[in-house]
This record gives sequence, structure tokens and C-alpha cells, in this order.
Amino acid sequence: MNTLNVELGERSYPILIGTGLLHDADLLKKHIPGKQVLIVSNETVAPLHAKALLDALDDRQVHLISLPDGEKFKNLDTLNLIFTRLLELGFDRSCTLVALGGGVVGDVCGYAAASYQRGVKFVQVPTTLLAQVDSSVGGKTGINHPMGKNMIGAFYQPQAVLIDIETLDTLPERELKAGVGEVIKYGLGLDLEFLNWLENNVDAILGRDRDALAHAIEQSCAIKARVVANDERESGQRALLNLGHTYGHAIETHTGYSSWLHGEAVGAGLVMASDLALAEGMIDKVTADRCRDLVLRCGLPVAPPEDMNSERFLALMARDKKTLDNNLRLVLMTGAGQSVCTSNFSSKNLTQLIDNY
Amino acid sequence: MNTLNVELGERSYPILIGTGLLHDADLLKKHIPGKQVLIVSNETVAPLHAKALLDALDDRQVHLISLPDGEKFKNLDTLNLIFTRLLELGFDRSCTLVALGGGVVGDVCGYAAASYQRGVKFVQVPTTLLAQVDSSVGGKTGINHPMGKNMIGAFYQPQAVLIDIETLDTLPERELKAGVGEVIKYGLGLDLEFLNWLENNVDAILGRDRDALAHAIEQSCAIKARVVANDERESGQRALLNLGHTYGHAIETHTGYSSWLHGEAVGAGLVMASDLALAEGMIDKVTADRCRDLVLRCGLPVAPPEDMNSERFLALMARDKKTLDNNLRLVLMTGAGQSVCTSNFSSKNLTQLIDNY
Repeated sequence: MNTLNVELGERSYPILIGTGLLHDADLLKKHIPGKQVLIVSNETVAPLHAKALLDALDDRQVHLISLPDGEKFKNLDTLNLIFTRLLELGFDRSCTLVALGGGVVGDVCGYAAASYQRGVKFVQVPTTLLAQVDSSVGGKTGINHPMGKNMIGAFYQPQAVLIDIETLDTLPERELKAGVGEVIKYGLGLDLEFLNWLENNVDAILGRDRDALAHAIEQSCAIKARVVANDERESGQRALLNLGHTYGHAIETHTGYSSWLHGEAVGAGLVMASDLALAEGMIDKVTADRCRDLVLRCGLPVAPPEDMNSERFLALMARDKKTLDNNLRLVLMTGAGQSVCTSNFSSKNLTQLIDNY
Repeated sequence: MNTLNVELGERSYPILIGTGLLHDADLLKKHIPGKQVLIVSNETVAPLHAKALLDALDDRQVHLISLPDGEKFKNLDTLNLIFTRLLELGFDRSCTLVALGGGVVGDVCGYAAASYQRGVKFVQVPTTLLAQVDSSVGGKTGINHPMGKNMIGAFYQPQAVLIDIETLDTLPERELKAGVGEVIKYGLGLDLEFLNWLENNVDAILGRDRDALAHAIEQSCAIKARVVANDERESGQRALLNLGHTYGHAIETHTGYSSWLHGEAVGAGLVMASDLALAEGMIDKVTADRCRDLVLRCGLPVAPPEDMNSERFLALMARDKKTLDNNLRLVLMTGAGQSVCTSNFSSKNLTQLIDNY
């Protein structure tokens, strides 16, 4: 087992990465505090993994709530299901929520923990690659609004992130690929060495090679932990973790959070971001091709949905959380493994690029 | 004008107390930041005071949302009205929300600010006595759940609290009295000198004597600012500000947040708390009578609704946010101007006391 730390002063916490963590009752008891525990999961994941947690914590008041599965349920109604259950159980400020599932479960559960009685403890137990490499670390929690992705939420750090790589054995192929979309983001935008490694190992990751998966997860978490420690509330560098996401979120909002997985939208977004950087002369053709090839090798889309014109795209992108005083800001590559968050690009290039897909 | 400060390090902010603040455009411009401003008010207050704010901020993108008036609208649906409006306006992370109204507007608006894009700035402009002396200061924001008062929310501090005493000129009599319920709480539980002053001046306050009102507001805010500075997230002393509130919240939840004003429920709660302290031998009859007399002089109820039996009361009180690991904790007076938060009381005394009303 490998342990990383997210260094945030009194809000610091460990990320534990290993195989079989969900069957290590002592470890679970140690890292999940409180006498009252609600495990928040969904209809798909709960049947696979909830029993292990319930058994390990049988010395507490432990309960399970199983949410409907899917990004389209990441909304106020689902959030309220958690509040109602907590109140029915009579859980108080000393309780702990455990997010057992993918990014949607982690985001909704984290925001519920941030909000219930103005804040209770929570622990992340991510079971998808996407959640393990990205969404479970860093304290971004929240829900979608029909008009915009992740528009409602809180910065709220967990007590611990427990990553059991074994849970990926049962992850559907499509979700595995979507998760790799978030992994390659780190290489493309922030770490050339990791990018080189990914180009040599992406097939092994997709083939679920345990060592390759472990390295990809550890490297991703290490990069994210470092960035978050320096910029918890995204006033600077943390925005770079959003490479490809402004386009991706627009696609997800346009499609009603139902047909594209988040990682798929990020895949297309990464290609769009590198194409714009190329048009702006910020990167060369070789670098842009590295991005596109890697996204293609992951089996992810390299273009937005056909029914999205540039007008619709720009309207949705304008709602991005990086927008400041009506100025759209985008994360653009400045080289392989390098990026910048900037409003300094030609909107004509952006429009043309979208129309060309 | 008088200025107090809530000292919370980088989250510190001023409380400005004076007459005519809403007509001082320079002061409003100075203390309300941002180019995008949404004024959050309600159908009753907006017609009286929104124009002054809109005019003063006419150099910004300034808009108004008018919520339905009343505690029963302090819920997720009303919160979502604010999010939808912010998204329709295309407001980004640099925007500011201004809460113009009483406690409900301040709590909902503050929680919307805490949550929109994971946190934007907000300013409190309280227009009821209750909001001016209590709810606008200290960063407790949130909404009610049908099963419990203030169960969903955030600790989230405003940028400033702007208290224009002139707004009390149009405050209905019933709301004025309810506000005094929160004022006397400070005297009874925390400050003997203020309690003595209140016993001599409560009639002047109820007669809207400007000097008496100003002194009551300043003293209340000063006590609250001091307590919050020492214990922002209520791990200790801040709980004392909840004197009378555990009973009061139970009454409000029982009556569906519609027939009793918050300050009225607190009035009855103060009497219940002092009666229990008397039964426990923590205070003498003279002190308990001082509490009851003061509540009576404010024209507030001194007993809970007749249809609440002790079983119902205890079930609702158990959901209080001070409850820890299933132990109900109550704020009880230990003398005039003194109190303690404790689980050390006889539940038989509590049950008997409720049944006796």
C-alpha cells in the first residue's frame, strides 16, 4: 500500500492506494471516524462493495443509502435524499458520510457532508478510475444545475481517500476509458515525464495491468495533491487541472448530463484545447498530434457532438467557473506537459475551430 | 455611525450601524464589491428599500430577485430560484450577493453565496431587528428541512454587515417584538450589565426610541462579534448564543415554519430554559422570574403551543445541532447573565416541565 498526503494544514489528509483495502477491516475502522456512519453509494456500486464496508464498521451505527446511478442524478433532488435519510436516522453533527462510488457519488456526498448541519466529516472511497485519479482528491464537491455543470457546491476536504485498485476489476470498459481521459490530462498539461510514460503504457492501463494502473493512479494523485496543497480554492495554478474541461462541461450540459460520460467529454475537450493552442501558435503540430493520438488510443471522442454549433458552445462555455467579469478564460497547452490559464486568445479562432468539427 | 469588527483573520469584516446608511451611495459603493451584483430581497422589503441600493450601485451590473416572504419559504426551492437567476444573468465567481431583508433572506442568500460556483462574496443588509441583532452577524447561513430547522447550510462569513436603523421605522409591531426576543437572549445568557439595562429600557425599545434601539443593536452585535471571533464554528462558547433555541426550533418545526415567528418561538424557549434551570436548581426563583417577566414585557409567548406534548417535543429537540452521539445538550442559565451548554440535566424534569405547560 502507498500513502500520499494532501498538505492543507489542519485540513490535511491521507490518500491510501492499494489492493484489497475494502477487505481490511482494521484499516477501514481506523480511517473512518465517528459512531454514526452513512455510506452513500449508488444502485450499481452498492451491490458490489457496500457489504465489505458495512461488515467492517459493524461496531458503529452504520447505514447505507443507494442513489440512482448517473450524472443526470447529480442534482438537488438526489442531494435532498441524503439529507432526509440523515434526519430520519437522527444523525447529528458528529456523524460521518462515506462516499462509495464514482465521481457523481463523491461530489454529491461531499456536498451533503459540507452542508448537513453546516458540515460533518466525510471519507472518499472511490471505485471508478476517474474518481480515483481526480474527483475524490482535492475537496471539490457539488451538483449540477440544468443550466451548468458543477455550478452549486463547496470546497470541502475529506478526512481520507481510500483507493482500492481491486474495485477496477468490475469497472465497465467504457468507464475505464473515460477515467484514462482524466489521467492523460495530468501528463498533457502538467508533467512531461508522466506524459512520456503514458504514451508507453496506455495500452497496459486499458488492459487493466495492475502495476500500470497503480502507477497511473499514484502519479495522478501525487500531481493533484501537490497542486491542491498550493492552491486549495483555485485562485491560480489549480485551474490548470481543468485542461479540456471548459469544452467538456459545455458538452455535458448540452447533452443533459445523460449521453456522454464526463471523461469522454474531457477527451474531446483535450483535443479542442490543443487544437486551439495550435491555432494560436502556442504549441506546434507535433505536440497537438501527441494529444489527439493519446485521446484516440484511449478510445475517447476527439470532436464534440455534431448538433452543437459554435453559438451554443460559446454560450455554454461562458458559464464556466473560470470566467471572470465576463471574460472567458481557458486552459491551453503551451508545450508538451505545460499549460496556462488565459483569456488571451482570439475568439475568432475559437469560433472557427468549433465550426470546423 | 458606529463600526464594530468581527475579528476572524482573513475572514474579518466590519459591522456598520447607523441611520440613513441605505441613502449613503458612497458608503454602499465602498462596502459592496464586484461588478456583478444581485440583490436578494423579498416581496415585502424590496418595495421599501431595493431602489436605494439599485440606485447607489447603478455603475455596476446590478439586478434584484424578490423571494416570497416567510420562514416557510426558507427551503431548497427558494434557494434554487437564486441559482437559476444567477445563471440566467451569466454571473460568475466574481459576483456579489446582497441580502436585503430579515433573517430568512439573509440565511438563504448567504447559503446561496456559499454554494454558487463553490463560493462568491456576499454582504448583509438586515432590515429587521432580529436580523440586525443576530442572524446577519457570524456567518451561519442555511435553509430548513421539513424535518428540522436550519439543518442544511454553511458557515460562511459576509464581507460586511450594513445596519440601517431607519429600516426599523417600517417594521411591523409583531416583528419588532420578535426581534427583542433575540436581544434579551444576550442579556439573560451572557451579560448581566446588558440584562440590567434591558429591564430599564425594554419599553423604550418597543416604543422605537432611536437611541435605545441603537444601543440594543450595538450591544447585541458587540457580544455576538466577540463570541464568534472566539468560536466561529461553534465548538464551544458559541453554543451559548442558542439559549432558548432548542425549544424554539422544535416549536417552529412542529408548526411548519408558518404560524410562529422565530423570535416568538425563542421567547417561549427562553422561559422553558429558565424553568428547567430552576427545576435543576441551577438558578433561583428570582432569576427565573426575571426571565419570564422580560419575555412577557416584550409581548412574546411564555409557553409552547398547546398541541405539543412532551413526546413530540423531545423527538424534535433530539434533532438539534448541539446533540452529540445521541446526547441532547441544552443551554441553561446558571445565573442572571450566565449560562452553560450541558447534557447534565434530568430528562424527567424536562418531560414534566413540558407536560405542565
